[in-house]
Formats: sequence, C-alpha cells, structure tokens
Amino acid sequence: MNPQVGIIMGSQSDLPIMAEAAAILEELGVSFEVTIVSAHRTPDRMVDYARSARDRGLKVIIAGAGGAAHLPGMVASMTSLPVIGVPVKSSNSIDGWDSVLSILQMPGGIPVATVALNGAKNAGILAASMIGAYEPKIGKNLDEFKNSLKVKVEKTAKDLESLGWKGMLKDS
Amino acid sequence: MNPQVGIIMGSQSDLPIMAEAAAILEELGVSFEVTIVSAHRTPDRMVDYARSARDRGLKVIIAGAGGAAHLPGMVASMTSLPVIGVPVKSSNSIDGWDSVLSILQMPGGIPVATVALNGAKNAGILAASMIGAYEPKIGKNLDEFKNSLKVKVEKTAKDLESLGWKGMLKDS
Amino acid sequence: MNPQVGIIMGSQSDLPIMAEAAAILEELGVSFEVTIVSAHRTPDRMVDYARSARDRGLKVIIAGAGGAAHLPGMVASMTSLPVIGVPVKSSNSIDGWDSVLSILQMPGGIPVATVALNGAKNAGILAASMIGAYEPKIGKNLDEFKNSLKVKVEKTAKDLESLGWKGMLKDS
Amino acid sequence: MNPQVGIIMGSQSDLPIMAEAAAILEELGVSFEVTIVSAHRTPDRMVDYARSARDRGLKVIIAGAGGAAHLPGMVASMTSLPVIGVPVKSSNSIDGWDSVLSILQMPGGIPVATVALNGAKNAGILAASMIGAYEPKIGKNLDEFKNSLKVKVEKTAKDLESLGWKGMLKDS
Amino acid sequence: MNPQVGIIMGSQSDLPIMAEAAAILEELGVSFEVTIVSAHRTPDRMVDYARSARDRGLKVIIAGAGGAAHLPGMVASMTSLPVIGVPVKSSNSIDGWDSVLSILQMPGGIPVATVALNGAKNAGILAASMIGAYEPKIGKNLDEFKNSLKVKVEKTAKDLESLGWKGMLKDS
Amino acid sequence: MNPQVGIIMGSQSDLPIMAEAAAILEELGVSFEVTIVSAHRTPDRMVDYARSARDRGLKVIIAGAGGAAHLPGMVASMTSLPVIGVPVKSSNSIDGWDSVLSILQMPGGIPVATVALNGAKNAGILAASMIGAYEPKIGKNLDEFKNSLKVKVEKTAKDLESLGWKGMLKDS
Amino acid sequence: MNPQVGIIMGSQSDLPIMAEAAAILEELGVSFEVTIVSAHRTPDRMVDYARSARDRGLKVIIAGAGGAAHLPGMVASMTSLPVIGVPVKSSNSIDGWDSVLSILQMPGGIPVATVALNGAKNAGILAASMIGAYEPKIGKNLDEFKNSLKVKVEKTAKDLESLGWKGMLKDS
Amino acid sequence: MNPQVGIIMGSQSDLPIMAEAAAILEELGVSFEVTIVSAHRTPDRMVDYARSARDRGLKVIIAGAGGAAHLPGMVASMTSLPVIGVPVKSSNSIDGWDSVLSILQMPGGIPVATVALNGAKNAGILAASMIGAYEPKIGKNLDEFKNSLKVKVEKTAKDLESLGWKGMLKDS
Repeated sequence: MNPQVGIIMGSQSDLPIMAEAAAILEELGVSFEVTIVSAHRTPDRMVDYARSARDRGLKVIIAGAGGAAHLPGMVASMTSLPVIGVPVKSSNSIDGWDSVLSILQMPGGIPVATVALNGAKNAGILAASMIGAYEPKIGKNLDEFKNSLKVKVEKTAKDLESLGWKGMLKDS
Repeated sequence: MNPQVGIIMGSQSDLPIMAEAAAILEELGVSFEVTIVSAHRTPDRMVDYARSARDRGLKVIIAGAGGAAHLPGMVASMTSLPVIGVPVKSSNSIDGWDSVLSILQMPGGIPVATVALNGAKNAGILAASMIGAYEPKIGKNLDEFKNSLKVKVEKTAKDLESLGWKGMLKDS
Repeated sequence: MNPQVGIIMGSQSDLPIMAEAAAILEELGVSFEVTIVSAHRTPDRMVDYARSARDRGLKVIIAGAGGAAHLPGMVASMTSLPVIGVPVKSSNSIDGWDSVLSILQMPGGIPVATVALNGAKNAGILAASMIGAYEPKIGKNLDEFKNSLKVKVEKTAKDLESLGWKGMLKDS
Repeated sequence: MNPQVGIIMGSQSDLPIMAEAAAILEELGVSFEVTIVSAHRTPDRMVDYARSARDRGLKVIIAGAGGAAHLPGMVASMTSLPVIGVPVKSSNSIDGWDSVLSILQMPGGIPVATVALNGAKNAGILAASMIGAYEPKIGKNLDEFKNSLKVKVEKTAKDLESLGWKGMLKDS
Repeated sequence: MNPQVGIIMGSQSDLPIMAEAAAILEELGVSFEVTIVSAHRTPDRMVDYARSARDRGLKVIIAGAGGAAHLPGMVASMTSLPVIGVPVKSSNSIDGWDSVLSILQMPGGIPVATVALNGAKNAGILAASMIGAYEPKIGKNLDEFKNSLKVKVEKTAKDLESLGWKGMLKDS
Repeated sequence: MNPQVGIIMGSQSDLPIMAEAAAILEELGVSFEVTIVSAHRTPDRMVDYARSARDRGLKVIIAGAGGAAHLPGMVASMTSLPVIGVPVKSSNSIDGWDSVLSILQMPGGIPVATVALNGAKNAGILAASMIGAYEPKIGKNLDEFKNSLKVKVEKTAKDLESLGWKGMLKDS
Repeated sequence: MNPQVGIIMGSQSDLPIMAEAAAILEELGVSFEVTIVSAHRTPDRMVDYARSARDRGLKVIIAGAGGAAHLPGMVASMTSLPVIGVPVKSSNSIDGWDSVLSILQMPGGIPVATVALNGAKNAGILAASMIGAYEPKIGKNLDEFKNSLKVKVEKTAKDLESLGWKGMLKDS
Repeated sequence: MNPQVGIIMGSQSDLPIMAEAAAILEELGVSFEVTIVSAHRTPDRMVDYARSARDRGLKVIIAGAGGAAHLPGMVASMTSLPVIGVPVKSSNSIDGWDSVLSILQMPGGIPVATVALNGAKNAGILAASMIGAYEPKIGKNLDEFKNSLKVKVEKTAKDLESLGWKGMLKDS
C-alpha cells in the first residue's frame, strides 16, 4: 500500500521522539513512510519532498524539528496538503519555547497544525483523524483507540478503589 | 450542500476573530456552519455538538476560545474527527499564553491541531487542506490561493523596485 | 462518615503528587474519597462525577491535572461546589506553565481555586479551611496545624543559634 | 446581617477591579464588607483584620493586590479561614506575571485560592460556592446563576443562526 | 556602485521598520538594495535570491521578518555570506518572542546574526562594521558615527546640568 | 551640601522615569546630583564617573537604563559604593524583561541592588534608607514618610466605609 | 562586636544558599547574625525582628526566601533600614520566576534591594558596600576583594595563553 | 599568521562552550586568538582589548558570557569591528533568558551579532562567513563545510531507508 502519511524530521537525533508517530500510525492501520529532511542542511531535498508529496499519494505530512524549527512551515509553504508540526525539545533549546513558537506562529496564508512539545504520538493520531474523516476503516480504528483509553482509565480507577490510595501509591 | 466544516467558539466576543475562518472557507469553496458552544457555560450542548458531528457529515471542526481555553480539547475528546484549535487573545489574557498553552499542550491520545494566536484565517486554510487532500476541487482552489499569495508578493516587490524604498514608505 | 472532599486526578501518574492532599486531609480529620477521572479519556465519567457530587454530600472537590489541564475547569462548570485545581508538572510540560495557566485563567462565571504548581498539600489544607469555616472541630485542627508550623520554625531557629550557621550547615 | 465575606484590597486603585467581587456577591445574596488593607503600608491593620476575621463571623476573605502582591498570602498566614487571592494587573506590572506568581506560589502549609488575573468576579462566585456548600439558599442562587449563563449562550447561538455570521458580525 | 548589502523582508508591512537599516547604510556610505522576498509565499524567489547573492557581489544580507520568522535562517542555509536577522514585532505576535526565537535559535552549522527586536538600524550598523573591517573608508565612517553618539550624549548631559533636572523634564 | 547620591541614566528618554528618584530624595532631605552617562555611547565618561564617585563624597549611586541595560552593572564593577539599578521599560523592550534581567542577574562578586521595573521612586527611598542607617536625621525622615503612607491608607479606608464601595467607585 | 548585618531566611532549606552571604561577610570583616524567620509560619517573630532591628544596631538586613517570597518585602515594610532580598530557587518553583518577581516588584514606597537568583554571595557584598560607604575599613576590604577578582582573572588569562585553549580545556 | 578573530570570554567556566568556536575556526582555516576578559572583574583589560583590536589586525571579535552578560555589548561600544555575542547558559541563570536578552537587546547605535544560547560553534561559522565575504579561500571552505552537512544528512536518510525506522532506533 502506498504511504498515506509522510513523517520527516530535521535530524537523526529527533528519531526517538518522532518514532512515536510511526508507532501509533502502525497501530491505527495507517500506512506511512519515514525519512530525514533538513530545512537548513538539505534545502533542495526539502523542496523536492514537499512538491512531490501530493503526487506521490500522501494525504498528510508530519514534520518534527527543534530550536528555530523551520521544517514544518517551509514544507507547508510548498504543498497544499495539511502539515502537522511537532516541536521537539532539543538540547540547548530555551525550554522548548523556540521550537513551539517557530512552528505555531505561522503567518496568515500558511498554516501548520501544531501539536504539543514532543507530541509526536498525538501528531500520528491527528494524521489518522484527517484520514479517518474520509476512510471509515481508519475512523473506526480511532473510535476503538479512544475507547481503549477510556477502558484503561476505568480499570485504573477500579484498582484505586480496591487497593486504596495508599496501596496504589506503593505499587506505582 | 451539507457543511463540511463546523466553526464553533466559546462566546460572541470571539466572532470578530473567528469570522476570518468563515471568510476564507467561503473563498476556498468549502461549505461550513458557524455557531456558539461554550465548554463551561453549555457543557451539554458541547457534548451533543461533538458527538453528532461525524454523523452530520462534518469532516473537520474549528474551535476558537480564549483564556483557559478548554473547548477545542474537550471537543477533540468526544469525536474522532480532526479538531483545529484557535487560541483567541481575550481581554485579561496573560498576553495570549494562557489560550495558546491550554489548546496546544494536550495529553497523549487527544490531539488538537493548534494554529497561531488569533490565527482563525489559517485555521480555515488548514481545514481546507484536510478536505483538499481528498477532494481535488478544493485542492485546486488551495493551489490557486497559494499562487495568488505569490503573485501579490511579486507585485509588491516590483512596486518597491520602481518606487524605491523611500517612495514606497511614503505610500504605506 | 460520608466523604466531605472528593480528590480526583486525570491519571495514575498524578497520584504521587495528589496523595499529599489525601495525607494532610487525613491528618486534619477531614473525610475524603480518591479516584481517577479523566476529562479527555472519560468525559462521561467526569460529567457524572461533577453532577452527582453535591447530592452525594461532598463539600469541596480537589482536581489535579497536568499539561493542558481541563479537568478542574470542566468539573467546576458542572457543579456549584467549590473546585480546587492543582496544576501538576507532568513530563513534556513546558516548565509547568501549561497546567498553571489552563487551570488559573478560567473565564468569568466559572472559577477554579488554583494552588501552586504541584501544591496538592496546600489543596488539602485549603479544602479543610473551607470546611473549618463551618465545622468548628476542623477549624480547631487547622489552628493546631498552623501552630505546629510555628513551633517547628522556632525550634529550628533555636538549633541554628546554638549550633551556629556553620554547624547547622554541616548537619543539613 | 453580619458580613460573611470580607473583601480587602491593597489600595484604592484596585477598587474598579475588586468592585466586581462585591457586585456579584450582592447579586448572589451573600453579605459582605469592603475595605482597604495594605500589607506593606498598614501591616498592623492587616494583622488585626486577619486575626479577628473568624471571630467577627466571616467565612471567607477575598484579597486583591498587584505587583509583588503579599496581602493574600500574609492574611492567609494569620487565619484559618479560606483566603481567595485576586492578582490585579497594576501599572508597571510585568504583564501581570508578578502578581499572579506572588499569590499563587505559596509555600506548603499556607494556601491561597488564586483566581485569574483581574478575576474579581470569579473570586466572588468562588466565595459564594464555599458558602453555598453549607447554606442551601446560596447554593440554589448559584445554580440559577449558572443556568442564566447557559441561557445567555443559547440565546446568542440562536441569534447567530437566524442572523448568519455576517449579520451578527455587523451587530457586534 | 554595485550594492554591498541586500536588505530583504517578508512583506511590505515590515518596511517601516526595515527602512531604518536602509537609512543608516545611506548615512554610513554603504551601497545597498532593498526588496521583498517571502520565505513562505515566494520560496523559489528566496532560493534564487540567496544562491545568487554572492555572485552578484553582495557582502552581507539583512533579512527581517515577524512571527514564525523563517526568512533569515532559510537564506542563511543557502549562502556562505553572513546573514543578519531582524526580528520584527508583527501584529498577533506573542510579544515578539516568536520572531526573536525563530531567528536566534538556529541549529549548529547555520548561524544568523540576530539583532534586537525591531532593531533594523542596528542591523545596518552591523552590516557596515563587517564591511568596514575590510574597507577602511567605511570603518572611518563608523568611527565618526560612534563619535557623534558620544557628542550627543555629552551635549545632553551639559543641558541637564545647566537646566537642572526639573527644567529638563519640562522640555522633554 | 555635597551630593550624597548620584543619579545617572543612559539617555534623556529615561528622565521622566528617573526624575521620580530625584523628587523623593528631595522630599526626604537627601542631597543628590543628576546627570546622563551612557555605558555604550560614553564609556570613558562612565569610567570617570564610577571611579571618582567615592572620592567626590557620594554614598550611593542610582543608575537607570533600558533594554540590554549595562550601565548599573558596569558602574558597580568600578566602585565599592552600593549601586542601585532601575530597569526602565523602553520602547522596543521585550515587555521589560530585558532590562530587568540585564540588571538583576549580575555574576558573583559584583552586585547591583535592583528595584522594580520603572521603580525609580523606590530607588530613591532605598538610597535614603542606606544613608538613614548612618544619618539619624534621614532615618527619622524615612520613618515619617512610612507613617504618611499608613495615614493615607487609613484615610482612604475611612472614606470607603463612609461612602460605601459604590460611592467610592463613582469618585475614582 | 554587635552585628551590623542581619541574615534571615524563611526555612532551614534556604541555609545552603544563604550561608554564602555569611561566608563573604566574614571574609570582608563585617559582623553579622544569622537566624530563621518565616513570614508565613512565624508572622509575629517577623514583626518583632523587623521592628527591633534598627534599635539593636543593625545597619542592613538580608532576607532570603523562595516561591511566593514575602519575607523581604514584609520586613522592608516594618523598618527604615535597607533590606536586601535574595530570591531562592526552591523545589516546585516555576524556574525561579516566582521568587524573583515576588521580591523585585515591590509597590511604590517599600523598596527591596533585589539581587540575582540564589545570589546570596552578592547580597553579602552589597551589604558590605552599604557599610563601607560609611566605614572606611570595610570600604578598603571591598577594594581589596575587587582587586583579588581582577588578579584571579589575569592569572587565568595568563594560564590560557601559556597552555593554549586545548591544554586549558583538558585541565578544566 | 596574525589572528583574524579574537575569541574572548568572561571566565574560565565558559571555556568548554567557547572552545567550539575555536575548533570550527581551526577547521575552516581561520586564524584566531583566545583569551579571558571580564567586563566586571577586569574592566581596564576589556577597554584595552576592545580599543586595540582593530589595530592588531582583528576582523571580528567573538565574546561569550552568561547571566547579566555585558561583555559583548561593552566591547561593541568600544570598537568599530563587528562583535558576535554568545549567550552562555551559566549555573543560576534563569533558563538562559538573562544572557540571551542582555546580549541581544542592545540599544540603537551599538549592535551585537547574537547567536543561539551556547551557540559558540555558530559564532565561529558566522565569523568565518564575514571573513569569507572578502577572502575567497575562506568562502570556499565554508561552501565545502555546508556541503559536508548536506552529505551527512543524505547519508543518514539512506541509512534510515535501508534499516527502517525501528532498526535505526535501536542503533541510536
């Protein structure tokens, strides 16, 4: 199956975070590809990736980057596909504010769908929800995923009731 | 035509900002509906809106709110459709940080696609791009919109060259 | 005895912090219950909890959550009981600012009594003070607790005087 | 009727904000008193006010202050009544962060129930909810107030539907 | 004379700020060109500008942009010339932090010489100092400019001494 | 009488703020001088001022500056007199954070006594308190000043009691 | 010798930081006393300490506290002596901003001489400089201390020149 | 060969960061010198260094400092050479904001070319780019350096493709 989602990141050091997007897409049955594209080190590669994305059949692009994070916004400027930006908290970041603001505060005309700091898992779920709006199978998978979250909380609540808060605290 | 996008906001005071989402969707040929739903004042109405959205044929929800802005995240928790959050800079906001962080920093499992502070226009474009990934007509409208941005910049650049920066400055 | 205070939190990972509320309420002789209620994962459970709280005899609700922390505010929107919010500094939080602002900056009409970041112990004392305003026994316990704080400081001050600052420093 | 709530503020310049607490308490049928007590200019007056509050029959104290706002915390240190702190955004404030943090971040043992920046109206509602937990009449008034908020939102939503967003925008 | 400095900006709305760079370069005898290049609206134009800059004889590029300001960093990634970035405080900016951090916090390998918020005048002086390090005429102009700043301060100090602070205050 | 306090500032635009230091010193009976000294525009003048201050009989220096405010810290590095720094909120400041942090966060060995943003009046009072610790006349003036603050608050409190909060509100 | 400086702190946990003030005062030949005084836990003790300070012969008070740090400002409100505030970065602090702003942003009339976060050493030096302005022996000690800082830097610079930066780096 | 770049820093503790500037200049074939100059501890040494820099043949100065970082700005005030400022994140820094703002927010007339927090490597590259604008050999070295960055990213991208994201993750 052709990939529906393209996951890109500025450097290999972003992979431990960005892999969470891949993992949840796999779980939700969405096909995807993963590669490294740097806005600042490989600008031509970025242009090629962004401009060919739609014709290659992608429906969404997830782009993660840290510091002065230009990758998500630059890719968004060169495709009409939705681009999800993941602010990555890199070393030497000023508490993550730099990547959050560089991705979030895009000028009028060129949006990036920004998720939480290091929120790659949520980026994957968001991509799936865009696809699930049109592909019922994925929508159904999302509903089941949402339900599993509920079930897990209810289970923990029950454990807490039977163990008591002191017992639960010892366990955690 | 059934609305494809639902635009909701916490209070009438958000309308001047949120109307920009409506205006650009109209321009891009995307059908939409606009209403007021408050997470804190009308929680039942919010639950109904979120839970029925998919069945009513919506593909995306755009939710704007200010201060401790819970509407986008709460709606996202009750639908598998993608939800775009618009942080609105309300009076008594702490420089907008409150609405930005209340919308952006969603926990794992429940993403909100956050756009810039007061970025309702970009929320509209982002919604169109999600639809445009599946509906070629909207994709084409987006490409034309993107092109018009380019043409406008090139036109201004030409004006600047012919007028000189001092001449241009007087004009602006 | 029926619980007077309900302590709820968004996830089990908040328990080590929120347990401090339980511990101090126990010490102050206030009855309470503890459970897990997630605004985003179990919205129905949250609605039930908030709407039944008053009829079940609760006098105060303490709600802790991290990141985009919607639980305290959403519960406050569905009950006329006072709700105390505890911002929890979760992993991937932007230094705690996200949970602080999502809980504190509630819109007009729906207050949340916010305490310091990770301030669950103070949430417990605050709940006790609300109850103590009407139940003299609890008010007396609070006065004794306040006095014990004073005694402890005076004891330390005396130690410091007898040991000298260098001696005290070695001890600590 | 003896006042149930004491509203104090550091200076007359806080009155336009703090008057919102008085107005809503009046509306909710809660008796109250209003005066000026400065932590830094009248420390003795502050000590007297805080220490006598409980014996004078107060159930809650609402304290508003700006900048390095010590009044709420200092009063809380000298009474076992609940103290609600209102951060006021004074001139020369650093965007309100100073008063928010000086009130919110109290050390373990001495809580202040903090509301939003300039959130005096919410302070009044919060005080009423503490009283309403024990006095059913006030609880009922709060339920009606909450309902009126809902009705107002529903009315606006209906107006928006009949006028359309463009019509509504012209009106606002 | 061929331009030595290229001044570019993301949109016409940046011109009132960026014109200060042009004005001071003119005063310091440095030749320059001014145009509009948008990273997000005209990415190809940006690539062309950056890649041809060195061959066209430019020695420095000054790039101004607001919000998620990617222009300075993207240009820096495509030329070996020094790039000076001017964070512009645009409307809807979060107090200017977004443009400051998007320009300043560039990743290792691709520096941008960042100046103060709205600091276009300083960007011009900085460009002149780079040129003045190699072209003695410009270095001399800079020394004279620096001296004029000193003379102006000394003149004001003298006025203050003769008028007294009260007299001076009335004048200002 | 020889001046006991030296008030300096980086530019004439700081005078409206810094004049408050002069005014209160005059009121408190402390002799002073006022002049303009720029760390960046007149470094030699700054060195002369700082190095001669002690010999000229000054007991304290008050230095005000905005933005990257180096004047207070640089003067402190060249005298053993206490230096009080006043962060001035200049235009293009990032909300005043720049001047606050540039003055406050001095490295070990070289303290600056920092007061609130635009807090020149407090700088004057602080200088007077240093002098008053050794000169009983000034100490007495300070006690009277403190008392006048108290009297003023008590007067306002009385007015509020007699007018009621609604009456007082109309007046303010 | 009677103590000239009073060093106080809110809790024993502040001692490791505040001890640096004691150590440098000892080194500079200034007499001092050290004790624990909590604004919130022992308000009466604080009032006694502040009000008797001048009569007991103190010339300066150094007060350290963390979080919502009210001790320095409250002491300043009850004495005409200069008060130096040390913001201590406590656990659960929001990056130290809370203590910095609670101490720095005092209202007009009641200054606190604020030093850097955890800057107790600088607080000691600042106290010595106030005393040194009137007591030549201490002034001379300060000059020698300042000179020793210079000598140490010059020594390191020489080491760097002889070892080279690579050699020096290995050493550090 | 005479040094073209002067690297200075406020204290030996900055060397591990600042050495990255030296290392990259060495790699790029730019000659340089390294020494320690403290604005606050050795102001005379700083004045000498800054004033003689141009005559000694330097083309650029790189200055690193932490906290209230005055060295880069003060040096810039005393030379017409370009000065690059490196904000160093020192211990007790408030998350690096202090050094960033003290260096970046220079007043009109005295620019400092600021790089990212701890961005000494980028300071070296920026210095090389200023020199490379006039010395073709260095310009060529920079182009090769830029190309090596691209090659490295492309190599990692290829590895990722062959190993798959799970394989790559295990490796990193």
